[in-house]
Amino acid sequence: MPNDASPTRTRRVRLKHRPQGLLSADDFTVDETVLPSPVAGEVLTRTLYLSLDPYLLRLMRAWEGAEPEWREGIVIARTIGEVVRSSVPQFAPGDRVLGYGRWQDFDLRPASALRKLPARNVPLSAHLGAVGHSGFTAWGGISLATPQAGETFVVSAAAGAVGGVAGQMARMSGARVVGIAGGAEKCRYVVEDLRFDACVDYKAADFEKALAKATPDGVDSYFENVGGAVLDNLLARMKLKGRIYLCGLIAHYSDDKPVALKNFREFLQKTIALHPFRVADFADQWDKAESDLIGWAESGVLRFRETVANGLESAPEAYLAMLSGDGIGKHVVKLG
Amino acid sequence: MPNDASPTRTRRVRLKHRPQGLLSADDFTVDETVLPSPVAGEVLTRTLYLSLDPYLLRLMRAWEGAEPEWREGIVIARTIGEVVRSSVPQFAPGDRVLGYGRWQDFDLRPASALRKLPARNVPLSAHLGAVGHSGFTAWGGISLATPQAGETFVVSAAAGAVGGVAGQMARMSGARVVGIAGGAEKCRYVVEDLRFDACVDYKAADFEKALAKATPDGVDSYFENVGGAVLDNLLARMKLKGRIYLCGLIAHYSDDKPVALKNFREFLQKTIALHPFRVADFADQWDKAESDLIGWAESGVLRFRETVANGLESAPEAYLAMLSGDGIGKHVVKLG
Repeated sequence: MPNDASPTRTRRVRLKHRPQGLLSADDFTVDETVLPSPVAGEVLTRTLYLSLDPYLLRLMRAWEGAEPEWREGIVIARTIGEVVRSSVPQFAPGDRVLGYGRWQDFDLRPASALRKLPARNVPLSAHLGAVGHSGFTAWGGISLATPQAGETFVVSAAAGAVGGVAGQMARMSGARVVGIAGGAEKCRYVVEDLRFDACVDYKAADFEKALAKATPDGVDSYFENVGGAVLDNLLARMKLKGRIYLCGLIAHYSDDKPVALKNFREFLQKTIALHPFRVADFADQWDKAESDLIGWAESGVLRFRETVANGLESAPEAYLAMLSGDGIGKHVVKLG
Repeated sequence: MPNDASPTRTRRVRLKHRPQGLLSADDFTVDETVLPSPVAGEVLTRTLYLSLDPYLLRLMRAWEGAEPEWREGIVIARTIGEVVRSSVPQFAPGDRVLGYGRWQDFDLRPASALRKLPARNVPLSAHLGAVGHSGFTAWGGISLATPQAGETFVVSAAAGAVGGVAGQMARMSGARVVGIAGGAEKCRYVVEDLRFDACVDYKAADFEKALAKATPDGVDSYFENVGGAVLDNLLARMKLKGRIYLCGLIAHYSDDKPVALKNFREFLQKTIALHPFRVADFADQWDKAESDLIGWAESGVLRFRETVANGLESAPEAYLAMLSGDGIGKHVVKLG
């Protein structure tokens, strides 16, 4: 039986229908639903933060994720919550937990899907970003890319949650790190705050020339989050036997149009290897990655920012802002 | 001083101008030129065979190869010749030599650029094809791809000089080998003569369905010679963590249009690695490769065919026929 503190209903944000064409705020609705009675092993949580990530767009447009509820418009993504009620010994009320959850104020989740967050000297929300799966994605990519001292390492979406960590890690390895970001303000952040060696504004009219100037010896290794014209320009700048580590293609999540690359032939001409990866590839290294990232964040070696929206109902607009590149660092929604 | 047998002039086929748009026979001309007097270390050869290869198109269209003469329309490609006159002890008149040479009846070449061909029980022209650099290219790609027993290995341009050897080598490793070729006759050759497990006709209206039927469990490893719609369809058939070994992009050598792939996103979704390679990457393994290939050819384990044009003047038309996929196996021109 729920005690007085346990809610029996929750607000949620869900898709009204499968999105057609570009995603818009009109595709979402806020409604209220009954929280089912917990079954054995389930934990009731109050949601504190929602993680806003590009990959969700693919699931939204496909109207389909791992869980069957996706086919009813339920969005399931990484969240941080606080335990309200627990039927299992490993979680107690007040614990902060990381896991997959619905875009809801309250959620019932199997204990096996939750991880208790360590008490460390980083903002709670960073466990979704720089020291969470965004940082971990960067950590995984860098463990593949193994940037070397003296190499030129380029990362796109450099002011973003993943790119910012990837570039800083590459710089720890002694590589010359060039970021690509959209707009002068982001580029200033990437160079001044994140301490990249250079940053090129892909929205500027002289992008191609500026990229060539920033990579005078060509590019050894490219950490790709974007695709489109950014990838096309990078293909032209790669060195012979350059390596591309493909982490994301945000330019291509909004539609199903062919990806058209003028410089695709460079893959062959310069034998540029393409190494795509997913954060799941490194699941067995989570503890090491988290320990590295939190340590660097606590000591100030790893810097980051967050773009925070407030209130569950702001999730659709905040998600669209993230997609449009409007904001710096990790995008989260703070609830309550 | 040349002796009686030594010519002082030679016919040659060269480009009249830098080709604009699609290459045509009108871009070439046959003329005669003076053979310069040999300098120390040079060998005079009579050309026996010209190798016709897709990569030359890129050099022709660029009006530029490694040697400055390319900028005057001189085509320099792999040839087999017979030594007419030699100033160096390692070559004697009558020796058969492999190397880079001009599209000419006679040629003067530095001895360091020539290799004496072994006397083995294979057709002389095969030293340009199945047991030469075409076979060696396949050998190199297979040494990267390391096909495993039980895996599904797909190769495009399967009736071609490289694809035919690659598929037969993959089959030696125990993989299930599916070829892709243009037309029923080529597919018959690939299955009946080369003994692939299956072959799919990319020119047939039901290509997509036939490919799915021929690869019911998906594709582990794909040896790519073509690009375009063939690559696009394969991306959809690759397994999670599939590997693509990029050897050629013949669909994209004739123009500079963007390469547009509907399924490019699959690289990321299925973390499909793209490993481009060039035969030069394996230069230090030539002896091992040649020994393997000649051994297999002599014992009948490795099968191959050649499409032979006759006479120097036939080189342009034969080259265009090779590009258009008109013929099976290695394309060569036989001179004299």
